[in-house]
Amino acid sequence: MKGAGRRTVLALLGFQALLIVLSCVLVRYDRSAAADANPSNDDQAIENMKVYSMFQDVHVMIFIGFGFLMTFLRRYGFSSVGFNFLLSAVVIQWAIICNGVSELGNGQSTISVTLQSLMSADITAAACLISMGAVLGKTSPLQLLIMGIIETAVYAANEFVAHHKLQVTDAGDSIFVHVFGAYFGLAVSMVLGKPRHSDLEGSSYNSDLFAMIGSVFLWICWPSFNSGGLVGSAQQRGVINTYLSLAASCVTAFAISALSNPKRKFDMVHIQNATLAGGVAIGTAANLMVQPFGAMLVGSLAGILSVVGFQYIQPKLLAKINLHDTCGVHNLHGMPGVFAGIVGALMAFLANKDNYGYNLYVHFPARVPADGPEVADAQQADRDLQPNVGRSAVEQALFQLLALGITLVVAVVTGAVTGFILKGKYWEEFEENYDDEPYWEMHEDTHQNSKYSKVAPLPLPQELPLRHGIELS
Amino acid sequence: MKGAGRRTVLALLGFQALLIVLSCVLVRYDRSAAADANPSNDDQAIENMKVYSMFQDVHVMIFIGFGFLMTFLRRYGFSSVGFNFLLSAVVIQWAIICNGVSELGNGQSTISVTLQSLMSADITAAACLISMGAVLGKTSPLQLLIMGIIETAVYAANEFVAHHKLQVTDAGDSIFVHVFGAYFGLAVSMVLGKPRHSDLEGSSYNSDLFAMIGSVFLWICWPSFNSGGLVGSAQQRGVINTYLSLAASCVTAFAISALSNPKRKFDMVHIQNATLAGGVAIGTAANLMVQPFGAMLVGSLAGILSVVGFQYIQPKLLAKINLHDTCGVHNLHGMPGVFAGIVGALMAFLANKDNYGYNLYVHFPARVPADGPEVADAQQADRDLQPNVGRSAVEQALFQLLALGITLVVAVVTGAVTGFILKGKYWEEFEENYDDEPYWEMHEDTHQNSKYSKVAPLPLPQELPLRHGIELS
Amino acid sequence: MKGAGRRTVLALLGFQALLIVLSCVLVRYDRSAAADANPSNDDQAIENMKVYSMFQDVHVMIFIGFGFLMTFLRRYGFSSVGFNFLLSAVVIQWAIICNGVSELGNGQSTISVTLQSLMSADITAAACLISMGAVLGKTSPLQLLIMGIIETAVYAANEFVAHHKLQVTDAGDSIFVHVFGAYFGLAVSMVLGKPRHSDLEGSSYNSDLFAMIGSVFLWICWPSFNSGGLVGSAQQRGVINTYLSLAASCVTAFAISALSNPKRKFDMVHIQNATLAGGVAIGTAANLMVQPFGAMLVGSLAGILSVVGFQYIQPKLLAKINLHDTCGVHNLHGMPGVFAGIVGALMAFLANKDNYGYNLYVHFPARVPADGPEVADAQQADRDLQPNVGRSAVEQALFQLLALGITLVVAVVTGAVTGFILKGKYWEEFEENYDDEPYWEMHEDTHQNSKYSKVAPLPLPQELPLRHGIELS
Repeated sequence: MKGAGRRTVLALLGFQALLIVLSCVLVRYDRSAAADANPSNDDQAIENMKVYSMFQDVHVMIFIGFGFLMTFLRRYGFSSVGFNFLLSAVVIQWAIICNGVSELGNGQSTISVTLQSLMSADITAAACLISMGAVLGKTSPLQLLIMGIIETAVYAANEFVAHHKLQVTDAGDSIFVHVFGAYFGLAVSMVLGKPRHSDLEGSSYNSDLFAMIGSVFLWICWPSFNSGGLVGSAQQRGVINTYLSLAASCVTAFAISALSNPKRKFDMVHIQNATLAGGVAIGTAANLMVQPFGAMLVGSLAGILSVVGFQYIQPKLLAKINLHDTCGVHNLHGMPGVFAGIVGALMAFLANKDNYGYNLYVHFPARVPADGPEVADAQQADRDLQPNVGRSAVEQALFQLLALGITLVVAVVTGAVTGFILKGKYWEEFEENYDDEPYWEMHEDTHQNSKYSKVAPLPLPQELPLRHGIELS
Repeated sequence: MKGAGRRTVLALLGFQALLIVLSCVLVRYDRSAAADANPSNDDQAIENMKVYSMFQDVHVMIFIGFGFLMTFLRRYGFSSVGFNFLLSAVVIQWAIICNGVSELGNGQSTISVTLQSLMSADITAAACLISMGAVLGKTSPLQLLIMGIIETAVYAANEFVAHHKLQVTDAGDSIFVHVFGAYFGLAVSMVLGKPRHSDLEGSSYNSDLFAMIGSVFLWICWPSFNSGGLVGSAQQRGVINTYLSLAASCVTAFAISALSNPKRKFDMVHIQNATLAGGVAIGTAANLMVQPFGAMLVGSLAGILSVVGFQYIQPKLLAKINLHDTCGVHNLHGMPGVFAGIVGALMAFLANKDNYGYNLYVHFPARVPADGPEVADAQQADRDLQPNVGRSAVEQALFQLLALGITLVVAVVTGAVTGFILKGKYWEEFEENYDDEPYWEMHEDTHQNSKYSKVAPLPLPQELPLRHGIELS
Repeated sequence: MKGAGRRTVLALLGFQALLIVLSCVLVRYDRSAAADANPSNDDQAIENMKVYSMFQDVHVMIFIGFGFLMTFLRRYGFSSVGFNFLLSAVVIQWAIICNGVSELGNGQSTISVTLQSLMSADITAAACLISMGAVLGKTSPLQLLIMGIIETAVYAANEFVAHHKLQVTDAGDSIFVHVFGAYFGLAVSMVLGKPRHSDLEGSSYNSDLFAMIGSVFLWICWPSFNSGGLVGSAQQRGVINTYLSLAASCVTAFAISALSNPKRKFDMVHIQNATLAGGVAIGTAANLMVQPFGAMLVGSLAGILSVVGFQYIQPKLLAKINLHDTCGVHNLHGMPGVFAGIVGALMAFLANKDNYGYNLYVHFPARVPADGPEVADAQQADRDLQPNVGRSAVEQALFQLLALGITLVVAVVTGAVTGFILKGKYWEEFEENYDDEPYWEMHEDTHQNSKYSKVAPLPLPQELPLRHGIELS
C-alpha cells in the first residue's frame, strides 16, 4: 500500500485525542495566565511576556529553521518541511506534559502552563528534530512520530536529572538538546541500518536555496535560543556571546570549506550547517564570562570542527561502522555539542567570586554553601537561592562533565532501543528513500507537459553521485 | 491592450494622492507619538511599543504569510506576492483613515495615529487579502484595488458596530476579519462567475515550497495576531490558547488529509491551509478561559473541518452553485471563522465571576451593571470600565451570535454589490487566468535556452488536471 | 586555478585570528553585560534589551533581507546569499572594533560591548552590503572581503565625524549607510570597469521569487532599522513614519513601473527594489515631526525617483560613463539617500520649540545654547544634554547638508581608492561573471539526468537579453 497509511492516521488521531484527555486531567493555565487572578498575577504575566520576542525567534527556528534547512534534499522538500511541521506540532503538546510531570505531587495536582512552558516545549522539539535529521528520508512519518513520543519523554527525564539533580548549567541546552538529540538520532539510525543507495540523496540548485532560508533563520534567531531563559545582564551577555560565536564560526566554516575542497570551492553542505556550529558550541557557556574574544575563539574552533566532521569524519563513520547520517547532525550538533559541554566545564572551573560577584551563585546554585554569611549574600543577588552543597569550582566542572557523559549514555542507549522498536514494516515505511512521492499527492507531476514548463521527458534515468561525497555500496 | 494598463496606473497614483490629501487634513500623530509632549506621553509611547514585536509578527503575516501562501499557483507567483504587496500597501494607508473616522466629532478634529493604529490597519488588510484569496488569479490588480478600497470601508463600519455597539468580544478577529473577509470574497467570486478552465490552476514542486514559507510564517506568528490587542494575563492566555489550537489543528489536518486520500497520501493543499484553521477557530475566544485542553479540542476540530471543506465541500459548491474559490478561503477562513464565532458564544455563555473574577467585566464590558457596587469592583480590574447594561451570560452569548450573523449578512451583501461593480472589461482584466504573463514583464522567458537551464521546448501543450481535483466544465 | 583559492582561505583565517587577538586586547563586555556587577547594571541590561526585537529585525534585514534580495541573479544565488553571509559575519566583528575605537582614551582602555554595539555592527554591515550590490557578480569573495574591511573603517570614521563633530541627525542612517554605501560601491565599480557581457546577468522565475523573500523582509523590518536607536515617543514616531513612507513608495513604485513599460506591465526589478525607497528616503527624518501625510509624500516621491532611476538613469550611466551597477544600488540607496538627506535638512530648518517643545534639543543637541535657562530646560527633557553651540534652525539645516556632502565626497574618494586596490588578478577573481560555478561545488549539475528532473540537454547555448534592459557592448 502506498501513502502515509491507515496506521499513521489512527496514530495521529489517537495520540491527539490522548493529548487532549491528558491535558484535561493534568494541565491548567498558570495563575499568571488565568483570568480569576489578583492584579499581581498580571504583573507576573507581564514579566513572563518580556521574552515573547525571543520565544517567537525560537518558534521560527523550530518551524522555519529546521523545516527549511532539511529541504536540501531535492525531491524530499514536502516531507522535510511537512514532517518537521507535523512532528513538532505533536511534540510541543506532549512536551508540555512530559516537562511538567515533575511539578506534580507536593500538593500540586496540575501542570501550570506559562509562556515559558511553550518555550521549553519548542526547545524539546529541537532535540527531536535533530534526531530526525539523522534519519531524514529513511523513515516514515509514523516512525518519526513514535521516535518523537519516546524521545520527548526521555529528554524530559534526562533534563530533569541533569538540571535539577546534578545542578549543572546549560544556558543554550547544548548538552540537553544538541548532544542528546544528535546521539539519540544517530543511535536510531545505526540500528535501522545503512539505507539502500538512492540517486535522490542529493540537492538541486533550488533545494539548496530553500535550505539556506532555514539555515540563515536558524543563525539569526540562535541568540534568542541561547538566552531566552536568562535574565538581566546574563541575558544580554548570552546574546553577545552567541552573536559573536556564530559570526566567527561562519568565517572559519567558509575558510575550511574551501580549504578542504581540491578546487578550493565552497560547499553548500558546509555553509548551510557548519556556520551554525558556533551557536551550538557556545550554548552551555552562553551565560558565562567568556568575554567577546572567548566567544569568537569558541565559534572559530566550532566552525572548523564541523567542516572537518562533514568532510572527513562522516564518510569514515559510514564506511567503518555503517553509520548513516542524512543531515550530518553529528557534525553540527553532536561534536560541537560535546565541545560546548567541555567549554562549559572549563568556564565552570574558571568561575569565582572575583569575576562573577554574587552572580556566581545565580549561575551555579550548587556552589552556595549550606550555611554561613555567603547564603545571605547570594540571596541578595537572587532571592530564590537556597542553601546548597557548597561545591568548589573543580567539583562544579566535574559535575558539568558528568552531566555531559550521562546525557551521551542515555541518548545512545534509549536511541538504540527506539531504533529496535522502529524496525520492521509495521511502521509503514517505504523502500523509496529521500522521495516525497510515496507520502505526498503530487499534483505537479502532471504538469510537466504544460506549455510553460517547456521541458521534455528524459529517455533514461542515470546514476548520480551523492551530495555528501559518500558512496553507499 | 496588455499589461496592468493605463487605468490601473491612474487609479494607483490618484488614490495615493487622495490618501496624502486626506491624511493631511485628517490624520496626525497621537500625543504619545508627538515631540511636543510632556514626559507622561513618553510613558504612553513606551506602553504602546510593548507590543511592537507582536505588531511585527502581524506585519510578517500580512506581507510574507499571505503573500507567499498564495504563490502555490505555479505560474502566478509574481502576481500572488506582488499584488498582495500592492493591495496591502494601499489598504493599510486607507484603513488608518477608515478605522479612525469614528474618533472624529465630539471635539476631536483629527485621527490620532499610534502603533495600535498600524496594527489595526494590518489586521484590516488581512480581511482584504482573504477576499483576494477567493478571486486570486481571476481578477486584475485594478479590480483588487477597487475591491480593497470598498472592503476596507465596510470592514471598518462592521467592526465599529459589532465591537462598540453590540459590545462583543473577538480577540483574534475571527468574526470581523476571517468570516467577513471570506464571505465578502466568496460573494465577489460568485458574482464574477466561474472562470474558464485553465491548465495553470495548479501548483508545481517549487511553488508549493514557496507557499510553505507563507504558511509556516502565518502559523508561527498567529499567536501575535490573536493576542496583540490584549494585555496582562489575557495576553499570555491568548498566546497559549492560539499556540495549542494551532498545534492540534496541524496534527488533525495531516491525519484527515491522508484519510481523505484514496492512497492515504498527504496533500499540500491541506497542509498549507488546514494546519492554520486552529488559529482562526480559537480567535474569538483566544482571551477566554478555554483552558489548554479546550484550545486543543477547538484546534483539532478546526483542522478536521477545514480538510473536509477542501476535500468535499469546495467541489460541491463549485458544481452546485458555481462558486469558485481559488485558495479555498471558505475552508480556512469561512467555516473555521463561523466555528470560532460559535465557540466564542459558548465561552461567553460559560463565563461568570467564579472563573473570571472581576476580569469578567474586562472581557465583556456589557455585563457591567448600570449601577451598584459591582461597578466599582469592576473598575478596580480596569479603571476604564463604565457602568453598562448589565447583560446576563445568555444575553452576551446571543449578542455574540448576533454579531456573527450580522457580519455574515453584511459581508455577503456588500461583497455581492462589489462583485457587480467589478464586472466588465473596464477594470483591465484579462482572459488568461492564473498567469503572470499579462501583468508582468517576463525577463526569464528569454533564458529558457541558456546553457544552464538545459531544457528543450516541448512540442505540444496538453491539458492538465486541476490542483484541487475540481473539474471545470 | 578554480575556486575561492588559497589566498581567500588564508585571508579569512588570518583576519579571523586578528579579530580574536584585537578583541582579546581591546574588547570587553560593558558593565551592563558583566556578571560582577551591582544590581543597577542589571537594570541597564534590561533597558538595553528593550530594543532586542528591533535588533533582531535588523539582523533579519542584513542576513535574509540583503542576502535573498541579491539572489535575483539566476545563476548566482549561492554566491549572493553566501557571500552576503560571509561578508557580514566578518564585518560585524570588525565593526565592533572600528565603531568602538573612538571610546578609547580618556582613561578607558577597552571597548565596551552592549546589545547596541551589535546593532551598530549590523548597521555598518548594511553599508558594506549596499556597496556589494554595486559590484555583485563581478568580484571575488576576497575582493569583497578587502572592500568590506576598508569600508568598515571608513564608515566608522565618517559616522563619527558627522554624528559627533558635525552633530547632525540621521535616525535611519540614510546618509551614513545608504548614501555612503551606495557611492562607495559605485566608485569601486567605476574603477573596476564595465564587465564583459554575460548572458547570466538576468533573473529566472524562481530566482525572482527568492529575491522577493529578501525584498519583503527588508520592507517589513525597515521600521526597526530606522527606529532602533530612538526612545520614547520618537521611537513610536519613527515606526509610524517609516511604515507609511514604505507603504506609499510601494504604491507609486508599482504605478511608475507599469507607466514606464511600453506594455504597461510591472517589472520585478522595480517591485523588488523601488518599493523599499520609502524606507531610505524617510530615514534621516524618521524621528522628526513630518506628520503622517509628510511621510507618505516623501515615500511617494521616493518610489517614483527609484523607478525612474532603474528605468532611465541607470542605462544612461552605463552608456555615458561606463558605470555598471548590478543591483541598481544608485536607484534604491544612492538617490533616495540623497533625497533623505535633503528632507532631513528641510525638517531641521522647520524644527522649532513650537512643534518640538524641549525635544528640539534631544533631536538637535547643537541647538542647545552655551548657557542660560534653556540649558536647564533642555536637561529636563534629556538629562544627558550638555551646553552646546546654540545653532539656529538654518545653521542646523546647513550642517545637515554639509554632512551629506562630506559623506558623498568621502564615499566616492575612498571607494575609488579601494577600487584601485582591488584591481588585478591577485584577488582571485574569475572571468566568469554572475556565475556560481567558479566558487561553489555544484552537486546538482550532476543530477540533470535524474528521472525527476525530466529535462533534456539543450543543443546550443544562445545569447540572452539582459534583465535590466541594458545592452553591454
